[in-house]
Amino acid sequence: MADARLYYDLPSPFAMKRGGALHGAQLAYETWGTLNPTRDNGVFILTGLSPSAHATSNEVDASDGWWEGIIGPGKAIDTDKYFVICANTLGSCRGSSGPASINPATGKLYRLEFPELALEDVANASHALVTSLGIEQLACLVGCSMGGMSSLAYMLLHPGSVAAHISISTAPQAQPFAIAIRSLQREAIRSDPAWNDGSYDDAHYPLNGMRIARKLGVVMYRSAMEWSGRFGRIRLESDQRHDEAFSSEFQIESYLEGHAQRFARSFDPNSYLYLSRASDWFDIAEYGGGKVSDGMLKIGIERALVIGVETDILFPLSQQQEIADGLRAAGANVDFVPLDCPQGHDAFLVEIDVFGAAIAQFLASL
Amino acid sequence: MADARLYYDLPSPFAMKRGGALHGAQLAYETWGTLNPTRDNGVFILTGLSPSAHATSNEVDASDGWWEGIIGPGKAIDTDKYFVICANTLGSCRGSSGPASINPATGKLYRLEFPELALEDVANASHALVTSLGIEQLACLVGCSMGGMSSLAYMLLHPGSVAAHISISTAPQAQPFAIAIRSLQREAIRSDPAWNDGSYDDAHYPLNGMRIARKLGVVMYRSAMEWSGRFGRIRLESDQRHDEAFSSEFQIESYLEGHAQRFARSFDPNSYLYLSRASDWFDIAEYGGGKVSDGMLKIGIERALVIGVETDILFPLSQQQEIADGLRAAGANVDFVPLDCPQGHDAFLVEIDVFGAAIAQFLASL
Repeated sequence: MADARLYYDLPSPFAMKRGGALHGAQLAYETWGTLNPTRDNGVFILTGLSPSAHATSNEVDASDGWWEGIIGPGKAIDTDKYFVICANTLGSCRGSSGPASINPATGKLYRLEFPELALEDVANASHALVTSLGIEQLACLVGCSMGGMSSLAYMLLHPGSVAAHISISTAPQAQPFAIAIRSLQREAIRSDPAWNDGSYDDAHYPLNGMRIARKLGVVMYRSAMEWSGRFGRIRLESDQRHDEAFSSEFQIESYLEGHAQRFARSFDPNSYLYLSRASDWFDIAEYGGGKVSDGMLKIGIERALVIGVETDILFPLSQQQEIADGLRAAGANVDFVPLDCPQGHDAFLVEIDVFGAAIAQFLASL
Repeated sequence: MADARLYYDLPSPFAMKRGGALHGAQLAYETWGTLNPTRDNGVFILTGLSPSAHATSNEVDASDGWWEGIIGPGKAIDTDKYFVICANTLGSCRGSSGPASINPATGKLYRLEFPELALEDVANASHALVTSLGIEQLACLVGCSMGGMSSLAYMLLHPGSVAAHISISTAPQAQPFAIAIRSLQREAIRSDPAWNDGSYDDAHYPLNGMRIARKLGVVMYRSAMEWSGRFGRIRLESDQRHDEAFSSEFQIESYLEGHAQRFARSFDPNSYLYLSRASDWFDIAEYGGGKVSDGMLKIGIERALVIGVETDILFPLSQQQEIADGLRAAGANVDFVPLDCPQGHDAFLVEIDVFGAAIAQFLASL
């Protein structure tokens, strides 16, 4: 499959929030549609922890993107109308600079020498890319999950850069339950002897740690309700089972194993640690004297759509309400859409019709 | 501290549900109060996965038990009135026979040679102990968490053995969310190289696996709501922090670490695996042609109190309702008490006043 990624060279040095700077760093991104002459039809998408820039298919790379059903000609985010951009997150490993990139100062992989990463750095790098494309103000900034946190940082740190915002299943600050889960995922990776303080290779790779981290993620991204209906207590067929003691017996276990197998070697473990920790660190209250609501007051946009899911245990609906209330208090005209999908946090990747309808209706109203 | 444990020799051989038998096995138990001449004031307590038989203090062992606030003279389970018995679960490691016991056939530790354990075996062993004490019918059988599942098996397999039942935060069958969590806990232990297929010792011990399993347990036993209020985003003091990359920064992380440290070396990892899997296997629908409600119909008792907690994500309130409905359909007079405590699954260990009041009121009504 051809590669549709473009590369943007970040200003060098690129200063990081918590200290240090990147030299010669880049962002991988893809685009769909055409920027209009007034340069006011730009839509930028900030992703969750693991997706690539390939949000949807295009002429160069016809493979399905991670939000294929939402973005494209005539779809909810209509590429006949909008110039859509999606970047791989700074610190990730799908083309953008991160711990798995070469450190130009040493000629070796950064690994844990990569500077501490905050979502504010993700926001600043994304803003620099958008500006480089000649876009002064985005028609819409879309943020899902971790990308929603990065979006709040983007709008707060770059006043006037966004006209409308779509916030999906995210948080204005990490709460202790989410921190506990992410801390455990990191511990699973760090406890794997093959992690070796970040110095692994393909032959000595923290596969078990990544598998456990991913499974715990999937458990949290979905919901008990969905699984009771979908898997119940269905057993694996005998030819799907292993002789090993305590190995999988139930379909739910092999479902998790499938997710783990697909993910564990496709994402850099150090990148995972950096982005996971950045999510824990994010707190818009830092900009509001310790209060989320006062931090939110510093975001000046015109319109917002805030979508949350009742069965989301990682980014609970109460936090979506907090974002909607905060943007409204800051002067935006906000549509708040609480959904009762059974799929939990991942609903935006699965319930394409429901999310597509809400997004299309919102964009049509702009 | 003196040891108040008594030991009951199980019938030998003791046949196990899934095949095989135990020879020379025993249960450790403690008692409080006095059995009356008509032998109808017995209360037996079936525990969750990890507690010992020491449910409350007594003359011999004055240390606090795991349910100290509930059991004792004048307390909710009044030892001036009832003869209370609590056993360490068969398969556990606090005095009862389990994978960490000597296999009389080999003179070595059972480890994974211990036969497959089901909660029906736990129930049968407990019933044999109760019978050996001269009690034909318990005034009340109390089951918390996993012990609630064992209780359902006890009542179903031994008709007429129980007059009244108190069911707390348990399940008539394991649902996929709970199976997923327990499967992950087992994987964390099994993935630790020191587990070594069950052949570890104190010097080579699966400490990391046990820590992760315990932390994941604590995350599930409590609730997001409680933690948001209790920990928020409070950071550790600098003298509580380590220099290690990605080590704990938030209080919630050190809270989990404290739980893990206290547990990881105090419970046998193989026992943990056996009891965890037994919980996944339990399904009262097996006795009802595949239907929970039909299985429940086979339990003939007079009175029941079913307590559940709205914030329990591992044993959700809907399952407590299912138990209450099932016992009622089977002819029992049932009090169903849904509680809105913020502490989740562990509320029965924490909200002593609330649980004590419900239990005392129920026992007074018998």
